[in-house]
Parts: sequence; structure tokens; C-alpha cells
Amino acid sequence: MDFELSEEQRAFAETAREFAAAEFAPHAARWDAEAFFPKDAIAKAGELGFCGLYAPERVGGLALPRLDATLVFEEMAAVDPSTTAFITIHNMATWMLGTWGTEAVCKTWGEDLTSGRKLASYCLTEPGAGSDAGSLKTRAELHGGEYVINGGKAFISGAGATDVLVLMARSGGGGAGGISAFAVPADAPGISYGKKEHKMGWNSQPTRTIAFDNVRVPADHLLGAEGEGFRIAMKGLDGGRINIATCSVGAAQGALNAARSYLHDRQQFGKPLASFQALQFKLADMATELVAARQMVRMAASKLDAAHPDASTYCAMAKRFATDAGFTICNDALQLHGGYGYLAEFPLERLVRDTRVHQILEGTNEIMRVIVARKLLEGDTDIR
Amino acid sequence: MDFELSEEQRAFAETAREFAAAEFAPHAARWDAEAFFPKDAIAKAGELGFCGLYAPERVGGLALPRLDATLVFEEMAAVDPSTTAFITIHNMATWMLGTWGTEAVCKTWGEDLTSGRKLASYCLTEPGAGSDAGSLKTRAELHGGEYVINGGKAFISGAGATDVLVLMARSGGGGAGGISAFAVPADAPGISYGKKEHKMGWNSQPTRTIAFDNVRVPADHLLGAEGEGFRIAMKGLDGGRINIATCSVGAAQGALNAARSYLHDRQQFGKPLASFQALQFKLADMATELVAARQMVRMAASKLDAAHPDASTYCAMAKRFATDAGFTICNDALQLHGGYGYLAEFPLERLVRDTRVHQILEGTNEIMRVIVARKLLEGDTDIR
Amino acid sequence: MDFELSEEQRAFAETAREFAAAEFAPHAARWDAEAFFPKDAIAKAGELGFCGLYAPERVGGLALPRLDATLVFEEMAAVDPSTTAFITIHNMATWMLGTWGTEAVCKTWGEDLTSGRKLASYCLTEPGAGSDAGSLKTRAELHGGEYVINGGKAFISGAGATDVLVLMARSGGGGAGGISAFAVPADAPGISYGKKEHKMGWNSQPTRTIAFDNVRVPADHLLGAEGEGFRIAMKGLDGGRINIATCSVGAAQGALNAARSYLHDRQQFGKPLASFQALQFKLADMATELVAARQMVRMAASKLDAAHPDASTYCAMAKRFATDAGFTICNDALQLHGGYGYLAEFPLERLVRDTRVHQILEGTNEIMRVIVARKLLEGDTDIR
Amino acid sequence: MDFELSEEQRAFAETAREFAAAEFAPHAARWDAEAFFPKDAIAKAGELGFCGLYAPERVGGLALPRLDATLVFEEMAAVDPSTTAFITIHNMATWMLGTWGTEAVCKTWGEDLTSGRKLASYCLTEPGAGSDAGSLKTRAELHGGEYVINGGKAFISGAGATDVLVLMARSGGGGAGGISAFAVPADAPGISYGKKEHKMGWNSQPTRTIAFDNVRVPADHLLGAEGEGFRIAMKGLDGGRINIATCSVGAAQGALNAARSYLHDRQQFGKPLASFQALQFKLADMATELVAARQMVRMAASKLDAAHPDASTYCAMAKRFATDAGFTICNDALQLHGGYGYLAEFPLERLVRDTRVHQILEGTNEIMRVIVARKLLEGDTDIR
Repeated sequence: MDFELSEEQRAFAETAREFAAAEFAPHAARWDAEAFFPKDAIAKAGELGFCGLYAPERVGGLALPRLDATLVFEEMAAVDPSTTAFITIHNMATWMLGTWGTEAVCKTWGEDLTSGRKLASYCLTEPGAGSDAGSLKTRAELHGGEYVINGGKAFISGAGATDVLVLMARSGGGGAGGISAFAVPADAPGISYGKKEHKMGWNSQPTRTIAFDNVRVPADHLLGAEGEGFRIAMKGLDGGRINIATCSVGAAQGALNAARSYLHDRQQFGKPLASFQALQFKLADMATELVAARQMVRMAASKLDAAHPDASTYCAMAKRFATDAGFTICNDALQLHGGYGYLAEFPLERLVRDTRVHQILEGTNEIMRVIVARKLLEGDTDIR
Repeated sequence: MDFELSEEQRAFAETAREFAAAEFAPHAARWDAEAFFPKDAIAKAGELGFCGLYAPERVGGLALPRLDATLVFEEMAAVDPSTTAFITIHNMATWMLGTWGTEAVCKTWGEDLTSGRKLASYCLTEPGAGSDAGSLKTRAELHGGEYVINGGKAFISGAGATDVLVLMARSGGGGAGGISAFAVPADAPGISYGKKEHKMGWNSQPTRTIAFDNVRVPADHLLGAEGEGFRIAMKGLDGGRINIATCSVGAAQGALNAARSYLHDRQQFGKPLASFQALQFKLADMATELVAARQMVRMAASKLDAAHPDASTYCAMAKRFATDAGFTICNDALQLHGGYGYLAEFPLERLVRDTRVHQILEGTNEIMRVIVARKLLEGDTDIR
Repeated sequence: MDFELSEEQRAFAETAREFAAAEFAPHAARWDAEAFFPKDAIAKAGELGFCGLYAPERVGGLALPRLDATLVFEEMAAVDPSTTAFITIHNMATWMLGTWGTEAVCKTWGEDLTSGRKLASYCLTEPGAGSDAGSLKTRAELHGGEYVINGGKAFISGAGATDVLVLMARSGGGGAGGISAFAVPADAPGISYGKKEHKMGWNSQPTRTIAFDNVRVPADHLLGAEGEGFRIAMKGLDGGRINIATCSVGAAQGALNAARSYLHDRQQFGKPLASFQALQFKLADMATELVAARQMVRMAASKLDAAHPDASTYCAMAKRFATDAGFTICNDALQLHGGYGYLAEFPLERLVRDTRVHQILEGTNEIMRVIVARKLLEGDTDIR
Repeated sequence: MDFELSEEQRAFAETAREFAAAEFAPHAARWDAEAFFPKDAIAKAGELGFCGLYAPERVGGLALPRLDATLVFEEMAAVDPSTTAFITIHNMATWMLGTWGTEAVCKTWGEDLTSGRKLASYCLTEPGAGSDAGSLKTRAELHGGEYVINGGKAFISGAGATDVLVLMARSGGGGAGGISAFAVPADAPGISYGKKEHKMGWNSQPTRTIAFDNVRVPADHLLGAEGEGFRIAMKGLDGGRINIATCSVGAAQGALNAARSYLHDRQQFGKPLASFQALQFKLADMATELVAARQMVRMAASKLDAAHPDASTYCAMAKRFATDAGFTICNDALQLHGGYGYLAEFPLERLVRDTRVHQILEGTNEIMRVIVARKLLEGDTDIR
């Protein structure tokens, strides 16, 4: 076992930290307040490779391990979890397209995506099937060399502002085995986008429903084989859970740093807040939970990199633990700021709003418990 | 002991529930989104007596017990905690003015305030003294029959949109004994208001700093005697804590009701959410905490009504318990709604944002612990 | 509403406090260490009426409201929750016998039970049906004017040292409707007792299994009508839950008192523990939870006294809340004592062990959640 | 980073698991019930090297990294945390003696200790200075080539049944710099032992106070240099915290395994407990916390092995997190067993009692928060 980052890994993280300080920090509050989607800043992240961190090299990705990707995401999320979370989703969709896409598909979109010049949305969730992905209803039927897509998706990050949709649709019978994955041009005829949702947070990325009305895509836009969609989606989800979890870890670190500074700076009853023992204890517990959360995420990423047979279980554990811890730490940091924590002038209330959805997305934390319990009760696991 | 409401009390609550359903429910989401201060709706509440529930009859108040006031506030807060919380602050300021104001002051503002035609702000907190009220620095000096006020206040609810300021300022030496209370016309020369704060919630009431630059008020605008201000403020705070706590209880009830309906309506994996045991357990715990919180608030209000020697301690306990429970219940209800809980279409995320500040206001929940611990450790209490 | 005890109620409590200080406090640690069942001390409690607090007057009971009974139990439990809990069970069984017993049964046992000269055990739980009382298997078949009882019971408090068993057995078909209640002499031929269980706590009362092998009781030992047993058991359980919950409240008060004293007495780093803010905060939270728990219990008792339609739901809430809070408070008090809290010299570790089972008994706290959730989701409740 | 154990490490763990199954499992409940100190079983552990896992080779130790030692301790603690915890203390004292002892001292005791034929106690805590080790009062004064020791120690594990005492005493002035460490024969004239403490758990190891009345030890029984004692104690504590924390992790794993089996075996309402979703969720959360706790401990051990500048902070974090998680998991597992969890027939109640003291020992978890907060607020740390 080895719990230290390599020099190279530290350098990655350092680069991401500097990037976020320069490109995100001055604008994050405004992007949130104005619900502005910062495509230019994302493209700058792309220039550093951050839009294709683990996408394969055939599409210009860095093909890094997931563990290394978390280091980059964590640093950016410490400043802006909402924008960073979108970038992680884009990374996931780009990795899917780059891994299972045909030559044609990769050629059309690959390098534009890994460079961040174009953006991808991931379309799995449907209005009637939040956590029950296997029951999705959007149809994709093969007619004369083209798939004709009908149905609807909900809660799609980036929808209306991205260029390609990585879509899960039912090309076969019921259940998970009937689902296939597709790359769909975001402006294909028959696609219409719902209004921009008014959300609690994640305001720097637009969320919309998408309706598909006889949308036609060439047969070679299929990702992987017919019926492989659910398997691809599930593989994506393992990584997606690590990504979201690492965004929570990053946000919590940002919040902890802010709280620590504030405790030094703010005086009450004639002495700095840092001198009050009850606040010290709170800070200590926040830091301890944060360190534990970070370890859970890195371990899960490492298991996924190693294709460990229990990787999915570890990813579910990490997602549950880190997103709960992340929200709680941000919320505790807000409390330590008193009334100022409630104002948008300080980043705390934004971090709380942004991390709140991490407990819901990519499978709610309730679904994470279902996954972990099932594995434990089946008993064929070394999680013991 | 008697844990049942009287017929009359049930009728109060029912009236408030109907009022809130008619006048708040259709607009609360918009008031939040647009940061709109609904003065007309507040005036309608005033027509029912809700702007002077416990203000004395000499100013047109209903002079009700605090316990009865909580019943009204709770029902309104179930729909809109932000607007209701402002109304509770207005009630508190109106009660102060009506209780300690001179004839002149009561005549000038009393009935306009209890009827909700005019509104009051309560000005205690200063930028440098959030929880440490005794150290406030705003000065009021008597010069030729007038007090001349200089200094600044922060986090003032309603500031810039209200008509009278109930102000705590230092007319004497250092410490709590040098503080006096005043009624100050909100548009007096020398008063300037800061920008409207951008907050996490409580958006239907404006919050601003206020600067006082040689503001002159007649000597008869003093409330109570010179040096009595801190005592008045503290008496106000006991009631203010009950008010804020009851707003949390109301919001939690609103959230619980929403969650219960959603569990029946929403299907996942082919059956209603209500049939999943883990969600049932969550709902049961939410309800149990809510019932406990409500009892704590009503008991504290009752102690305050009876001028019980430990009333302040019970108020502090109730404020700590109920505002923590209220936030947690709203947040759990959001989680039960999954992704929909994160959207402004549903009231959950608003209730979460609005109740968050209750853990900070009227003395942070950390200060509540200081108060309770001090009383316990001094030992002269029947709280045991 | 009225949150104050009457003079008479305060006097009851005071009497119980003095009794417990004189008769329990000097011996409780030893009774625990030696697993000694203090029948003499219980009989002394009986002299004060504490063995038939709410039993009907026809058997010499005081016929007090449940609320008043909690005041007595709470004070005794502050010193010895294990012995007190047995007394509450005896009260419950005595109340059942006195309420539903025939003249003959009441004459045989009534006054001996209410006076504490004889003791009763309550026999509901079976090894295979902990929380699922409706499925019990012990049979009682009517043969020639006698019921013949066969089967087994588990976790029976007092078993082997009591005089009469209030027994639930199946005299009819499957399900709850086939169950009847009986008064059975504890030494009837065919009854055999298992070994005294080695338990974590509750050591001052013996717990044993009981086997019934063709045990014959006269037909007039039936309590109530045939098939009424489950209804009687459920009515008993509502009260039993309040009793157990109030034992947790009492124990928590005992633990809080101990912790408060210890914080004053113990010095570390040159000053009393009471001066450390983080410990003050802990104490404040313990006291706040305790006050909330006590209110929940008293409210539920009051609802039961008033035969409120939601009484069972309030009892379930109170049991869940107060037994969880009670254990946590005792456990926190242990922690505040540091290493000394772990020693039997101090009462803390005993209070922790004794209150632990309250979260399990009289329906586990999981079952309480099932009850509360069902009621909430059915919707026909004013708990809202 | 690498989160996988090596083959060799897995083999260590496997050996320890088999040893514990064979030598501890059949007896642990009895050792607890009878407060029996199993010196023979400890000696058998010594035969496998488990009594000198990280002691230096000069005294026959295995000189393993701390991380490897945790693997062994964890497996044994899954069966018997009390006996294992004593072994960890013996390991610590043996490591101190072997590391700082003179030739004479090492020759006298070294191999007997690493082989488990003789046992060591660690004597730091005094009655008046639980967490404030720097203020200890026991004196050691040099007179004619001998140190003369006077004073008293409290809470000494193994006291009265061990062979050598590793003692911290004041040979110089006040404060930490006046403290020295000594190896003292347990039967030296002038040493007297208090009565065996009656404890909540940890019953398989005796705990006693020790009084020193003009106890004389040769000057070469000094460990390290004069005045180095506090530094040695602190280094010991880092490892001691990891050891205690890993005992909590082990116990939690034992409890989780038991709960998982029980959920499969026990039926209620006609189906196995394992099919109830709320219990599944509980099990999932227990496992997740356990995995997090284990990682925290291993990371801290690894930092200690690498002499990382923040090792002490990581040890404090791991001790706080893992001992809290361990107790909670054992306690939750007890609850999942219902009434059976409360009986000594099942291991749960013993695991709960044994792990309870881990939150207090080796610096209470409150002291852990003091350590972590101080480091965070000083700011010279990469824990951020």
C-alpha cells in the first residue's frame, strides 16, 4: 500500500489548482448568479487536456487513470463545483464516445470534444425513471440504415448548449438488455429542448429536458453493439460516481479553507473565533471527514483503474460517503461564517447549493445503499 | 399539563392556514425568484391582526400570548418561511414600540404597524458584533432635546422598504448598561441604506446595511428609559427566538406534507416510493423530530407567557432544537424528491434555503448552546 | 395548553425521588454487579403505591393517569433504570389483570400485586416472533373447564422470581384475532424456566425463557374475552412504550446530573472541565435533547389518558425518540467522565448498559418507525 | 498510490485470522464473563511473533512496519478486542523498551517480551492527569546510582499480572521536559497494586492503579536520556492510537459479519430480515463507515512508517474517526440482532462494551480534536 501521490500527480493537481485560481475563481460567483454557462473557460480547461482526461488517445484524450483525473477535478471543484461537475460529465461522455464510437463518430467529434472546443451531454435519465435506468422508454428503431429516435430525457446537463448527445435508448425489448447507446448531433432535426430549469444550484450549467421526435441518426452512430447500452451506461456510472464524489471532496476543501481563514480573521467577544474550543472541534471534525472522504474516492478510483471485481461497490460507497460528507462540511463551514455565510459575497452558500445535488445525481445516495447492501448480502465480495 | 390546543387556538391556526393558502401559496416561489418584498400581502395579513399579534392593545395589537402567535406563524411559514419570518420580526419590533414607546411614538406609528399598513425593522446587529450584542458601537448622543445617532447596522431585515427602525444604540458608557432603544423614522435625514444583499434565501425580504450619519430624533423617541435598551433587546430576543423557531417548524411541516404526497405519487421500479421501507423510516423520523420541535417551541412560548424564571433558557433550547430539526427535515424532504427536489418547481429547495438562516439568526445556534450551558452549569435552574 | 406540573404532580415526583435516593441509590450498583433481584425494595415501592400506579381501584390500584405514573417512574429510573423498568412491567401486568380479570382472578392476586407483595411477569414475546407478536404460537386449548397451555416464551422479565404470569396465547385460529390473555400462576405444574440470561444490563431483574407443557389453568383465568388478547396486548404496549421511554428519560437525567457535577469537580490542564467550551456545548445539547424527550413522553402519556385516536402513534414516536435520546445522553455523559466513566464505581456505564435495551424492548425502534410511517402514509391522522 | 495489500500482507492477516479463530474465538466470551486474563493465549500469539510485531530485531522483534502490524491486530480484534488491545499495549511497551533500553535492560527482558513469555504494562496516566500527560507528578530521583520512584499511576492495563512496567516519571523540573522513561520490574519492593477495577468491558485484561513507594531501580533502567520521556511517550502514543483504532476496525468487522449472517438467518413477518430495506440500508452504511475507518487507520500507519511530518495529525484523525465508527457499527449490529444482541450468548454486546473505551483511551477523542484543530489552525500542514 502507498498513500502518497507521485511527483507527477502532485504536478497535475498543482496545474489544476493554478488554472482554477486564474480562470474560475474570479468568475464563479457571477456565473452562478447569472446562470451563465462558461464555454470559453471550459475550452481553456480543454487546452490543458482537462476535457479528455481519461478519454482514449485515439480521440486525443490523455488516457489517464481515473485516480489521476480525480486530482484535477478536485482542485477545480474547490473553486467551482458546478462548472467542474459539468466538465466531469463531458469527460465521461467523451470517454464513452471515444471508447465505443465507430471511426466515423470518433473522427467527427473526438478531438473537438477532448479539446473542449465542442461539448457533450449525457442522456440517460427520463422523467419517469430517475433511479430505475433499466426501465427507460426512449425508443431507437432501425429503419433503412438509420435509427429513428422517439422519446424524452430529463435533467440533462448542458442540454441546449452542447454539440453532441451520448444517448441511451431502447433498440430492443424490455429490460436492460434492450438498451443501446448512440452519439446524436445535438442539433439534429426533431430534437427540441425544454426551458432552462430553475435549480437550487449548479447554475453555471444549463439543465433541460430533451424531446426526440423522429430524430434520425446514421447506423454508425451506435456506440458499441446493439444491446450493450446498459452495460456502457453502468461502466460510465462507476466513473461518474467517482467524478461527482471528487467534486464534493474539492468543494469541501474549498469550504474548509475558507472557514479556517475566517476563524482567524473574525473577532467576537474580543478574540478571534479560532480561539473558541467548540469551533475548533467542529473544524477538526470537518477536516477528518474530508480526509476520509478523499481516501474513499481515491481508493474507489484505484479499484476502477485496476478493474477490481468489487470496483462498483467501492464506487457506490465512495459516492455515498463523499457526497454526504461534502455537503455537510460545506454546510458546517457556512455555519462557522455566521450571517456572512448566508450571503453570496462569500462562497459558502454557493458551495452548499452546488454540492446538494451530488447526493442525488448519478444514482441517489439511497440507490448507493441498495447497491452496497446487495453486494454485502450476496456475500461474494472481499469487502467483508 | 395539557397538550391540546383549545378550540379558539385551533380556529386561529385554521384562519392562518387559509390565509396562507390564498395569499402566499400562489406567489411564494415567484417572490423568492424575483426577490420581491410582498408588502401588499403583508398588509392583508395585518388586516387579520397578524402584524400585531402580541403587541399591546394601546397600539391596536391583539395582545395574544406568544403561544397563540406561534400557531399563526407556523401555518404561514408552512407556505412561505421567508415572508412569515419578516412578519415575525415586524411583530417583535411593533411589540417593542408599543410596549416601551411614549404616547407620541405610539400615536405616530402604533396602529399603522399593527395593521400592517406600515412596517418596522429591528436594528440590533452590527458588522463587527454578530453574536456579541453587548459590544455594539452605534452612538446616540443627546444634544438639545434630540438624540444624534452615528454608526452602522448590518443584516437588517426589511431595510430600505420599511417605515420605522427600532434601533439599539449606545447612549451611555461601555457594556450592556449603556445601550438604549429608539424609534427612528426610516427616512430620517442622514440614514443611508446599503445595496440589497444577495442571499441564499429569505429572498422575499430585503436585507441591507444601514449607515447613520448625524441622524437626529426627538428625545421622546427613546423606548423605555436610557440604558434599558439591552434589557429590551434581550426580552425581544426570547420572543424572536420562538418566532424563528416556529417558522422552522412550519416550514418543516410544509416539507413533510410535500414529501408524503410525493411518496404516494412517484413510482420507481414499478411501485410507489411510499412502499420502500427505507423511505418510510425516513418519513417517520422526520415526523417524530417535527413533533418534538413543535413541542419545544410551544413549551418555551408558554414559559415566556408565564414569565417563568427559566424562560430564556427554554427559548434558547427551543431555538437550537427547532431550527436544526427544521432545516434537516426540509433537507430530507428534498432528498425524498430526488432530482425534482432540486428544482424550483417544487417548494423543497426554497424551504431548505429559507430555513438555513434560522440556525444563524437571533443568536447563532452556537450562542444558544452558550446560553443553555451557562444556565446548567450555574445550577440555579429547574431544568436540572 | 399547559406545560407545568400541578402541585400534586410535583409532590408525587418528589416522593419518588426521595424513595429512590433512600432505597435504590445505595444498592443499585451492587444489584447490577451481583444480578440481584431486589424484591424487598420493590415491595417498599409497593407500600407507596408504586406497584399499582394506574391499576384500577378494585384491585387496590391508585388509578392514576399514565402521565402521573411517568413522573414516579422517571424519578426512580434516574437512580436505577433496571429495577424501575421491572416495576413498570409489573405495573402494566397488574393493570391488565385488574382491568380484564374476573372477580376470582382479581381477588386471588389483585391486592398482592398492587402492594408489591407479589410480582407479575408479562409473557408476550416468543423466540421466533420478536417484533411480530401477531404470529405467536403458544396454544391455550379449552378442555373441560380448563385451558391447557403449551408452548414457550422468551425474554420474560422477572421470570422464575414472580408469582403470576400475564400470558398471551393462541386459543383460536391464526392471526391476531386468535389470541387470548390469561393469568397463570407462576408455579403451575408444567411450567419450567430457562437459565437466567446473561445480559448486557438490566441485571437487577432476571430474564428467562418459559416453557409451558400441558399447563392447566381454570377457565376463569381468562382475561377479557376469548380472542381479545391481542387487543389487550396492544393497549398494554402503548402504556409499556411510555413506561420504557420514561425510564430512558429518567436515566438520562441521572446521567446529566452526574456529568454536570463531574465537569465542576474534575480539573484538567489546570482548570475545571466545566470551563472547556466544547464540553459545555455537549452538555447543552444533552440537556436540550432530554427536555425534548421528556415532553414527547408526557405528551404521549397525555394522549393515552385522553384516549386520543392517534395515541398509539404518539406513543410510538415517544418511545423511538426518548429511548434513542436516553441512550445517547447516558453515553455522552460517560464520555464526559473520561476513563472514570468506564468504571463501575461511577453510575454511567451502568446507565448506558441499562438504557441500551430500551431501544429494543416493547417493539424495537425499527418497529416504532413502521408504526409511525404507516399512520402517516395512511393519512388519517392529525399528526400531519 | 496503491490501495491493495501485498501477498505477504494478506498472508500475515490470514495467519492472524486463523490464530484468532482457533485460540480466541472459543474462549472470548468466557474470558469476558470471568474477567480472566488469558496469558497462555497471549504467549501463543507471541510464538507467532505477535508480541513484538514492530519491536526491533535486537530484542527479537519482527521490526515490521506499523501498517503490517495493524493487519494482525485487526484480525485478532474481530474476535476479541479486549485481549487484542492488551497485546497492542504490550507491543508498544516492548517496542519502547527495545528501542530506548540499555543493553542490560534489553538483555533482561527483551526476548521474553517479544515472545510473549513475559508481559509489559505501560504506565503513563495518573489519577489527576488523564489527558494532560505533561503535568504528571510521579517522581524519580537519582540517589547513588539508583532512581527512587514515588507516586501513583491509574488505569494501567495488565497491572498486577505483568512482569515489567514501562514507566513515565518526573526526574527533572515541571513540564514535559522533566519527564523520563524507565523500565521497572513489576515486583520491585515498594510497588503495590490497587484492586482490580470493575469495568464496563475490557474484562479479559486487568486494570489497576499502581502506587510507588520508594521503589528503587538501577540507573541503567532509564530508557533513552533523562528528560526524553515525554518525547518517547508521545511517539508511543502515535502508534498506540493506531493500535487502538485498528482494534475498533477489527471489532466492527466482527460485528458486521455477525449482523450480516443474522439478517440472513432470522425471520420476521414471514421473511428473512435481510429482505427489509431499512435494515439493508443500515448494513450498507455500517460497511461504508467501516471501509472508511480502515483506510484512515492504514493511511495514518503508513504516514507513521514514513515519518511523515504530519503523522501525528493523521494518527489523531484516524483514532477519532475509527474508534467512533467502530463503536457505532458494533452498536448498530447489536440493534440489528434485536433482543438477542443484548444477550451474552451473541458477541455483540461484548463488542460494544469493549470498543466503548477506545473512544477514551490513548487520549480521549476530545483530545484528538484538540490536536487536529491546533495543527489545522497553525496552518503549517499539507492536510489543508
